[in-house]
Amino acid sequence: MTPLISPKSVALVGASPKQASVGYVIFENLANRFRGKAYFVNPKYDVVEAWGKQFKFYKSISEIPDAIDVVIIAVPAQVVPQVLEEAGKKGAKAAIIISSGFAEVGNKELEDELRALGKMYGIRLLGPNCLGVYNAFDGFDTVFLPAERAGRPPAGPLALISQSGAVAASIMDWAARRGIGLSIMVNYGNKADVGDVELLRYFEKDDRIKVITIYIEGFKYPGEAKRFLDAAREVAKKKPIIAYKAGRGAAAQRAVKSHTAALAGSYEMYRGLFRQAGIIEAANLRDMFDMAKALATQPLPRGNRVLVLTDSGGMGIQAVDALEALGLEVPEIPESIRRDLRRELLPFSALGNPVDVTGSATDQHYKVVLEALLPTAFFDMALVVTLMQVPGLTQNLAEYIIDAKRFRKPIAVVNFGGSEVVQSFTKTLEDAEIPTYSTPDRAAKALWALYEYAKIRGVVRP
Amino acid sequence: MTPLISPKSVALVGASPKQASVGYVIFENLANRFRGKAYFVNPKYDVVEAWGKQFKFYKSISEIPDAIDVVIIAVPAQVVPQVLEEAGKKGAKAAIIISSGFAEVGNKELEDELRALGKMYGIRLLGPNCLGVYNAFDGFDTVFLPAERAGRPPAGPLALISQSGAVAASIMDWAARRGIGLSIMVNYGNKADVGDVELLRYFEKDDRIKVITIYIEGFKYPGEAKRFLDAAREVAKKKPIIAYKAGRGAAAQRAVKSHTAALAGSYEMYRGLFRQAGIIEAANLRDMFDMAKALATQPLPRGNRVLVLTDSGGMGIQAVDALEALGLEVPEIPESIRRDLRRELLPFSALGNPVDVTGSATDQHYKVVLEALLPTAFFDMALVVTLMQVPGLTQNLAEYIIDAKRFRKPIAVVNFGGSEVVQSFTKTLEDAEIPTYSTPDRAAKALWALYEYAKIRGVVRP
Repeated sequence: MTPLISPKSVALVGASPKQASVGYVIFENLANRFRGKAYFVNPKYDVVEAWGKQFKFYKSISEIPDAIDVVIIAVPAQVVPQVLEEAGKKGAKAAIIISSGFAEVGNKELEDELRALGKMYGIRLLGPNCLGVYNAFDGFDTVFLPAERAGRPPAGPLALISQSGAVAASIMDWAARRGIGLSIMVNYGNKADVGDVELLRYFEKDDRIKVITIYIEGFKYPGEAKRFLDAAREVAKKKPIIAYKAGRGAAAQRAVKSHTAALAGSYEMYRGLFRQAGIIEAANLRDMFDMAKALATQPLPRGNRVLVLTDSGGMGIQAVDALEALGLEVPEIPESIRRDLRRELLPFSALGNPVDVTGSATDQHYKVVLEALLPTAFFDMALVVTLMQVPGLTQNLAEYIIDAKRFRKPIAVVNFGGSEVVQSFTKTLEDAEIPTYSTPDRAAKALWALYEYAKIRGVVRP
Repeated sequence: MTPLISPKSVALVGASPKQASVGYVIFENLANRFRGKAYFVNPKYDVVEAWGKQFKFYKSISEIPDAIDVVIIAVPAQVVPQVLEEAGKKGAKAAIIISSGFAEVGNKELEDELRALGKMYGIRLLGPNCLGVYNAFDGFDTVFLPAERAGRPPAGPLALISQSGAVAASIMDWAARRGIGLSIMVNYGNKADVGDVELLRYFEKDDRIKVITIYIEGFKYPGEAKRFLDAAREVAKKKPIIAYKAGRGAAAQRAVKSHTAALAGSYEMYRGLFRQAGIIEAANLRDMFDMAKALATQPLPRGNRVLVLTDSGGMGIQAVDALEALGLEVPEIPESIRRDLRRELLPFSALGNPVDVTGSATDQHYKVVLEALLPTAFFDMALVVTLMQVPGLTQNLAEYIIDAKRFRKPIAVVNFGGSEVVQSFTKTLEDAEIPTYSTPDRAAKALWALYEYAKIRGVVRP
């Protein structure tokens, strides 16, 4: 699998100098960003000039002077078997078949032929009818959508396995804009060979990846659910897996069948399977990455008791609403600590839980509360609301919150608004791996995910 | 109430040239943006120079040569009754008491005194302990948080009644950044006099406001729930009301009591009351404004049948999931229309519902589907997914969607991503009053709100 996701040498068959074509965009990706060796194959050209450089184009794979890890195939469907055969004879370890026109349009025989050729030559196949792989670490990128439409996210601890190409592209574009470190995306299209199971196994071993996210509509093959369960159960013991399953109700399942030809199977079946496998389920795409960024950066909690610290009573209440609805505890502050806090906070601060330092708070008040409560055995996590609209808070507050990482308990911050002050505060926290959220319900869900994963890992009792 | 929200002449008692003070920020707001006449009162100053102008400061309200609609009071608590008395003698119709130090800190007698004075002189009181009013139409702004922290949203069809000041300020800041037309915000603080009921009645009559949003933690006075129900029931027949109730579980209700001293009362009681009143309930702050922008711009549907049109099968499925979960219908396309569409769309488009024009779609395909289906009696609304990451779509697509407004059926658009292409497309649609959302669940919720309000208005059978 490594040659497929992190290859050292690649050949692009169907490379093209014609702008906006599939063969052009992948050519551009590989020529400008791939850190390994890239060879371009198209019998129509000898030398192509682009980006101020000259590129030799080969007539066929067999002409390439080096060994090839992965062959990327972007030629019409009927030519693909022949190219795959050449790739096999060349000794390629994997092929990514971008081309469409196979089972998804009823051409099942042609797809079976690919599968047979892959087996014969020992080549792992990704696709056909897929975006393939985006890997920010190695600059390996077979996504044929140009970067000005589908942004490329920065390297970071997250991986995405997506059954849908367009959904994956829109997630990449969204993550790129937000600086979310989604470094590896794999879209397997028709899944003639490599699917979720093989990818889970791969990400289990790739040390650069800390959290695996999955967008899935449904399984396609008999026995796939069982294989998925077996793999996920083992992988989830090492790395968190978050899955978002689309296709829940009757009309949606009809649509799934038409979209990815996935097997029917009730949503309840999938939920049960996720539970058994130790997969955390997301409610939607945003939710998936909200949880992922907490799981990628925060330590696991030893229990479910959350300290809520806020400068807005209203936001504190909303946080408690969300935490309670998710089954997390918001216990009161012990009287002994309360007495101490009262001396250091403003007279009208509320010392329940939430601790409300009020709209007249200063950075120092947050520091005092975090230091008095987070290290104690009474709390396992902190949800910190920092409405920067109030006059007394400065960017220093970010340093105090970052400093509280030394207590080795999960922290999630809520920072609602839009002004420059809010944005630069948010950026400082995120750069220091403190996850921030715009509304309390999202931060609560992230803490819930950490607690769920602590149960899956056996850190706390289920 | 009009003098309170949309005054022609105001006096600010406690105006100050000391930067960053409460009296300074409100002075700055009124001096630079208020379209009516503003008078500043502070016996310590005669003339204050600021922003290249000279401002006369009056010793007391009685010195002001004109009639005053509303007096804004930002002086220490113990001086407030005396100022209020002067305001009464001056014939002011309303007072906004920014000052804190009343019932919220246990000083109930002082607050009772204000109430008695208000009654004696026939002055409506807003506050004490509040942010007061932000009114973008008239430039009337008593919010004492500087604009670089708490942005001021542009004029538009939305009003917000907020029980929490900090929550209101963070909403304003968030709305300002996103260009959301939240023109009037009122925060009543301790609610010594004017509260939700009076404000609902006011917004019922202010023609500039199309949708009323409410952030509420709980009622405070006996009989208030009943009065609220009576008012809301009438207002909701004219304008949509969306409420977000914070303080749901046990720990959250404890926090509400400490924050706004609101009466206990189960969340179920509030939900029942909202239902009876015809108020649409929001799940969180974002949800409230997601629904508000649809209600402010879209016609009401005649039924609950939604057409889902998408270039991404995956996003289409997610949309159907969300619509079904909310009880909306996603019926299949009649075979006769399907036959016509097949001639004009790509061969592998899916013609169920969702209609999936695929990642190879062009703008024209969307136009064809919208024109073939939206005017028919088979559909009441449309949820249109436009993932702009695919290569064939251009900014013209926005024009085709805007053009479909002529069918007078609600449309909500999903446009996930982050690139410039996505952002400018989104802006074009929003400027033309087509609400857009980043994920399908949010668009589905907005259509649900339109259907709910159609039931409340009797446009469709409940």
